[in-house]
Amino acid sequence: MDRSPYDTHLDRNLANFTPLSPLSFFTRAKTVYPHRPAYAYGSIRRTWGEVYERASRLASALAAQGIGKNDTVAIIAPNIPAIFDAHFGVPMLGAVLNPINIRLDAATIKYILNHGNAKVLITDTRFAPEVKKALADLGRDDLLVIDIDDTETDEASGERLGEMEFEEFLSAGSADFDWSLPGDEWDAISLNYTSGTTSDPKGVVVHHRGAYLIAMGTIASWPFSAPDPNGFPVHMYVVPLFHCNGWGHAWALAANGGMSVLVRNITAKNLFAAIEEHKVTHFGGAPIVLSMLINASAEERRPFDWPINVYTAAAPPPPSVLHAIEAMGFRLTHVYGLTETYGHVVECAWQEDWNDLDADAVAAKKSRQGVGFSVTEDIQVMDPETMEPVPADGETIGEIMIRGNVVMKGYLNAPEATDAAFAGGYFHSGDLAVRHADGYVQIKDRSKDIIISGGENISSVEIEGVLYKHPDVLAAAVVAKPDEKWGETPCAFLEVRPGSSISEDDVLAFCRNHLAGFKMPKTVVFQELPKTSTGKIQKFVLREQFKA
Amino acid sequence: MDRSPYDTHLDRNLANFTPLSPLSFFTRAKTVYPHRPAYAYGSIRRTWGEVYERASRLASALAAQGIGKNDTVAIIAPNIPAIFDAHFGVPMLGAVLNPINIRLDAATIKYILNHGNAKVLITDTRFAPEVKKALADLGRDDLLVIDIDDTETDEASGERLGEMEFEEFLSAGSADFDWSLPGDEWDAISLNYTSGTTSDPKGVVVHHRGAYLIAMGTIASWPFSAPDPNGFPVHMYVVPLFHCNGWGHAWALAANGGMSVLVRNITAKNLFAAIEEHKVTHFGGAPIVLSMLINASAEERRPFDWPINVYTAAAPPPPSVLHAIEAMGFRLTHVYGLTETYGHVVECAWQEDWNDLDADAVAAKKSRQGVGFSVTEDIQVMDPETMEPVPADGETIGEIMIRGNVVMKGYLNAPEATDAAFAGGYFHSGDLAVRHADGYVQIKDRSKDIIISGGENISSVEIEGVLYKHPDVLAAAVVAKPDEKWGETPCAFLEVRPGSSISEDDVLAFCRNHLAGFKMPKTVVFQELPKTSTGKIQKFVLREQFKA
Repeated sequence: MDRSPYDTHLDRNLANFTPLSPLSFFTRAKTVYPHRPAYAYGSIRRTWGEVYERASRLASALAAQGIGKNDTVAIIAPNIPAIFDAHFGVPMLGAVLNPINIRLDAATIKYILNHGNAKVLITDTRFAPEVKKALADLGRDDLLVIDIDDTETDEASGERLGEMEFEEFLSAGSADFDWSLPGDEWDAISLNYTSGTTSDPKGVVVHHRGAYLIAMGTIASWPFSAPDPNGFPVHMYVVPLFHCNGWGHAWALAANGGMSVLVRNITAKNLFAAIEEHKVTHFGGAPIVLSMLINASAEERRPFDWPINVYTAAAPPPPSVLHAIEAMGFRLTHVYGLTETYGHVVECAWQEDWNDLDADAVAAKKSRQGVGFSVTEDIQVMDPETMEPVPADGETIGEIMIRGNVVMKGYLNAPEATDAAFAGGYFHSGDLAVRHADGYVQIKDRSKDIIISGGENISSVEIEGVLYKHPDVLAAAVVAKPDEKWGETPCAFLEVRPGSSISEDDVLAFCRNHLAGFKMPKTVVFQELPKTSTGKIQKFVLREQFKA
Repeated sequence: MDRSPYDTHLDRNLANFTPLSPLSFFTRAKTVYPHRPAYAYGSIRRTWGEVYERASRLASALAAQGIGKNDTVAIIAPNIPAIFDAHFGVPMLGAVLNPINIRLDAATIKYILNHGNAKVLITDTRFAPEVKKALADLGRDDLLVIDIDDTETDEASGERLGEMEFEEFLSAGSADFDWSLPGDEWDAISLNYTSGTTSDPKGVVVHHRGAYLIAMGTIASWPFSAPDPNGFPVHMYVVPLFHCNGWGHAWALAANGGMSVLVRNITAKNLFAAIEEHKVTHFGGAPIVLSMLINASAEERRPFDWPINVYTAAAPPPPSVLHAIEAMGFRLTHVYGLTETYGHVVECAWQEDWNDLDADAVAAKKSRQGVGFSVTEDIQVMDPETMEPVPADGETIGEIMIRGNVVMKGYLNAPEATDAAFAGGYFHSGDLAVRHADGYVQIKDRSKDIIISGGENISSVEIEGVLYKHPDVLAAAVVAKPDEKWGETPCAFLEVRPGSSISEDDVLAFCRNHLAGFKMPKTVVFQELPKTSTGKIQKFVLREQFKA
């Protein structure tokens, strides 16, 4: 068969094809907005021109150490300049950035450095105790360790573990390093380990193409073009950059020359101060961060009179949180995603016919995870055995399945896990959900969080939703408690408002009005709930209490 | 050499790779926003769900006629539903949409149908006289001709040339056609012929990847997320869909479920009526459209109190136009692009340090074409011989060169023209420009519009800029007039305000205050200027006056 004229002498060339990479946004930011602030941190202010220079210095200094394409560069840091710089400098080299959660223990850090075969570790000295143990256990002489000594925090510096400090290392590099885009947009840009609550952490490999597209998807959903009052987005970096690359927002902001406010310690006081000083227009955070803002004292609070757009994820925003936060002037969008999907790929997009609903009905709509972003090719709720979509009846539970360019390459050095995750041509999220008649998806539980009691499946999220309606409940987690008779029964762990005198009987009476009998918690425990650095409640820690 | 672990068992699969195509946005629009209006035209209102059904019917009816991948489907229509539907229905089939300018003569229409090897022609009966001649000359029995009989216009229907009317043809198709995305994002999606003022028209082939990305670039630049007052973009389609696929806006709007107001006849009355009825938030148009709005009568004007975002292209907005249009509440962004770049790839992005400038200084800034969009990989001003960038001195003239994913595949069946256009790894725009110290590009002339007088290069755009400053001048075009002594001399053609008594001497005296002697127009002609359907002044028509 002859080739079509549409395919003849019409090939890719340097003029009409460029691999998709967020590094192109970075080049644009330093070209178009060289004098606009890229980030503020403490007393530090750096423009896109300056951050470009720093990234260039980092890349060239790493290159001088023999680091190059597909080498892993790990970093342990909260949201401070070094990790922002590294999100550009490391990929400039074709190397792969591996941000590691600052709250991990030595054994897990060692596991990650070993499994990811890190060639470099850039580490904040404040985390030296665990990192030092991890390095001792790892016993790798060839690992280049660079310390970050953050000068903007009150916390005392920790022990230095390497030979050079980050700023010294940068000064050895060239501000005008000759770098190039990846040869293939499918090349890896970052390696992010999942939390691994049930097994060893898995290394999620993401690529330049997906990083470019997640940034574009964010811009299409958030009003990221030229928002008031600054004329450009000012994004408060609450989500850790070590978590799904901070949802890719550093890359998205580069596309339009937006600014980030880096916040090391997430407190109500620090967040309100940042909002006031920098006229923040956007941030993302778990409902726990929203609660923090709602419960701030009068001295901590600062007024603002422009719209602030908030993505919230990790858990559905309880109605009370939603009402309170929106009354303060924040515009909340509930989003959903996983490390395997570069962060948010599902959003609770607003529909015009919700304009006339009352506040509770709006809260119910907004508590749903929603629909795909513009860059999410397909989101389905399926029976994982048959791969048939469940009916859109709001009741039948299936597993959320995701397809598209913002799904990871796969898990590093784990072909079986990768194959299982992609079985049937969709990424299996592990989250159990229903699909409503309007197509919106609502999570009912993580696969492993479903409670099976007397043969009935009970959604822990449904019980938590009821508990959150109680005015005294600040945070709730329901987990399966082993039971001789029923197999498992629901146990409710509650954080209550200071001064509340609520009792177990009160809680059970409240639940009885809202839940079928077999779904009732059998036990209620009042305690502070264990949480991850991103505010996710760690149910596995609660489950371990039963073992102990 | 061993493969890196980052490239091992981490290949593309159905879950993590989808060819980029604006059809994915279309699927999202009908899934997420099935009840939101996709377009309004006259008394017609259709939702994204309905337009999806129509596109599906069109694709399946064409498939039943044997049309498929890489077949050319031509369409001759103004901005009416059929051409909007076709921008989705034709690509669903893998076929290539070839929109043809409604104002072309029979000979050019015939040239295009023949050169593009059209299998189908969908044609508005109002253009039957020229189309009939073209078809008779073409003499192709196998061409399927489908007539559009627009029921929403006052103009009398024209002669039917085919066997079926468009709505009948749609009703033969299936509302739920089983289609698929292109096998390769590099597959052609559309064929657009350049105006060919100096030679035969050239067929610009564009692909799905570029169409996806130009849409994303638009969204990143315009506030296309969820603008007031509707909560979604409402775009008035002034730019013809037969011109660079209407700058790709139909595709961009699908990504967020935006709405289009289709306007067949561009008059001030129609535009203001559309703005009032639909609360338009966006439109694009040449400065001539802006002048039309500025000069509208009191009866034609309608008030509005929300921001309307306007892209203007084709010619720099004269300061008087800029001041007047912004005073009315329109927010103007000057953009630049070519058919070869899917439309706009350069924008005059706002800089904070312009906030303090006076109105004239702002106008001077905004008259420049600007910097690349987020999806434009690189824009340079280069010496086309050496391919060296000119100094950023605001004076040295070079040619605008463009690189990136929003550059065409090439010209259809024209390998030499394609090679010439891409020589040196950049697309050669043919536009002559300078680069300012801040990196912003400003066009001085089309290569062929430079006037060479006594060996000196004279920019016709520079003279026009001076003429536009005169309060009586509505439109100005300066072209080279053949001259025995000087080779060429500048001749100014002027459209002046009704009732103006300005004379040739007045014009020359005005110019003398602003121009070097050798740049002075030698002749001034007062007349209505010939314009294309997009409002571009046709200088070649003026030049022909000298030949006659």
